[in-house]
Amino acid sequence: MSTAQRIRGVLSPVLTPFEPDLRPAADRFLRHCRWLLDQDVGLAVFGTNSEANSLSVAERLRLLDTLLEAGLPAARMMPGTGCCALPDTIELTKRAVAAGCAGVLMLPPFYYKGVSDEGLFRAFAAVIDGVADERLRVYVYHIPPVSQVPITLTLIERLLKAFPGIVAGVKDSSGDWKNTQAMLERFQPQGFDVFAGSESFLLATLRAGGAGCITATGNVNPGPIVKLCRQWQSADADHQQKALDVTRAVFGAYVMIPAMKAAIAAQSGRADWATVRPPLVELDEGQRAALDAALAAVNFRMPNAASLA
Amino acid sequence: MSTAQRIRGVLSPVLTPFEPDLRPAADRFLRHCRWLLDQDVGLAVFGTNSEANSLSVAERLRLLDTLLEAGLPAARMMPGTGCCALPDTIELTKRAVAAGCAGVLMLPPFYYKGVSDEGLFRAFAAVIDGVADERLRVYVYHIPPVSQVPITLTLIERLLKAFPGIVAGVKDSSGDWKNTQAMLERFQPQGFDVFAGSESFLLATLRAGGAGCITATGNVNPGPIVKLCRQWQSADADHQQKALDVTRAVFGAYVMIPAMKAAIAAQSGRADWATVRPPLVELDEGQRAALDAALAAVNFRMPNAASLA
Repeated sequence: MSTAQRIRGVLSPVLTPFEPDLRPAADRFLRHCRWLLDQDVGLAVFGTNSEANSLSVAERLRLLDTLLEAGLPAARMMPGTGCCALPDTIELTKRAVAAGCAGVLMLPPFYYKGVSDEGLFRAFAAVIDGVADERLRVYVYHIPPVSQVPITLTLIERLLKAFPGIVAGVKDSSGDWKNTQAMLERFQPQGFDVFAGSESFLLATLRAGGAGCITATGNVNPGPIVKLCRQWQSADADHQQKALDVTRAVFGAYVMIPAMKAAIAAQSGRADWATVRPPLVELDEGQRAALDAALAAVNFRMPNAASLA
Repeated sequence: MSTAQRIRGVLSPVLTPFEPDLRPAADRFLRHCRWLLDQDVGLAVFGTNSEANSLSVAERLRLLDTLLEAGLPAARMMPGTGCCALPDTIELTKRAVAAGCAGVLMLPPFYYKGVSDEGLFRAFAAVIDGVADERLRVYVYHIPPVSQVPITLTLIERLLKAFPGIVAGVKDSSGDWKNTQAMLERFQPQGFDVFAGSESFLLATLRAGGAGCITATGNVNPGPIVKLCRQWQSADADHQQKALDVTRAVFGAYVMIPAMKAAIAAQSGRADWATVRPPLVELDEGQRAALDAALAAVNFRMPNAASLA
């Protein structure tokens, strides 16, 4: 696969709907994935905002199978596969590669803190060697505010040198534009695809030659984000970016996952979309009302939301 | 089980030996557990220093089965069972309870940060309800430097009220004596057993009525730690505590897990004891030499170390 054929554009860490008893709701998950694909959003299933780290390996595999069996295109999928335990990461990654997924989004092992670049290099290398498949495309996942285990530029440099073609890119969720910029300048010219960790930096990333963004709010506001991704060279691109920022800020005033799920519950009319797994907690009634009002004020509406019910 | 019958004293998060290809070495694990029991150290298998978070659920279960099938007493075991994903925590905890383990040491779900006490309460409650066994004894695991998800006094109070008898105690690895002291004062009188997270606070914990300690260095220095635990009311208790602190400081100058494994490799003459799973890294040659010299300077010797080879 040449770098030109690789996945680009807007992807979303797909929210995982749960039944009231906390089991994953495979049917609603499938419908949500279809809805995203219809709007040209790629499926970064099992990301942070998917509550994937609250799912067992078996649960992730069953949900992936649900999508594949329904005929959804693996070429539009980038499942999150990075776990604390090496055998789990290898198992999930193998299955994603075997299914033909565009790539995998890989957290570093995140329990032990203050680990060295040498240790993280060995962790990624052990996965790549364990999967042992030339089709593997690894997108490393830099999200220090949550994982507390950063992926440094030095580590990326070493991984790129050791595994050219396999180490394919990064999602930078540091929230630090200077870091994204450094990645874009140093690695994008080598065909290492830099995805911004949210649409907040979408325009800046595309202007600097980056690949797109992988963003939580793609779950709820896909149309306008995809539009900017397509029209970033247009005259009103900055205006579009500002509008995206306004909508994102509404969700960002809450814990994002329950806020997005509450919005889908409200828009689709299906109350159990609001369910989250512990340690997360649903928005309370007051928060829900405030969120509804804030979304109404920015004319937020999810197209064809009834199909998500 | 009355509180008087509950496990107390010195426990150790049992180091997990690996083969050079990184598979768990079940035979050496079993020998190490026997060696610990012989010195009256309880088996907090699958703790932080066990690299348990680098093990899959299946690997933990196989290692637990190895101990049980060899006839080691489940009443001396407190396996770590707290994972990011609720189904994993429930599965591990169920198996530990069914095996008759003294209790389980339970991390909170640790991927998502900044979560509320309400969310953590729901997480523990969902496990307790999911296990649904009156024999369950949960020791909550407070280790904010690593998990980054603290277990507050308010949360403990709520858990104790909701699950009296089931919520049995805590390992406090905050390293903050004021916090341990607050737990001892507020909860130990209710039969909630407070274990210090290391032998550094063993004497202080016992003097305040606590249950003992669960300490990494129990893997290498069990005799003197158990001795102080038995003789804490003796005249030379403070002197003994100081000697423990000196030995611990030698290991504490390095990343603890590889340092302890290096010491066992050196003492037992079995080099592959030094193996760690990524993201950890073995001590390098210079570090090993310095550690050996520092341990020799404090007359460190593991009794019957050949049995660990």
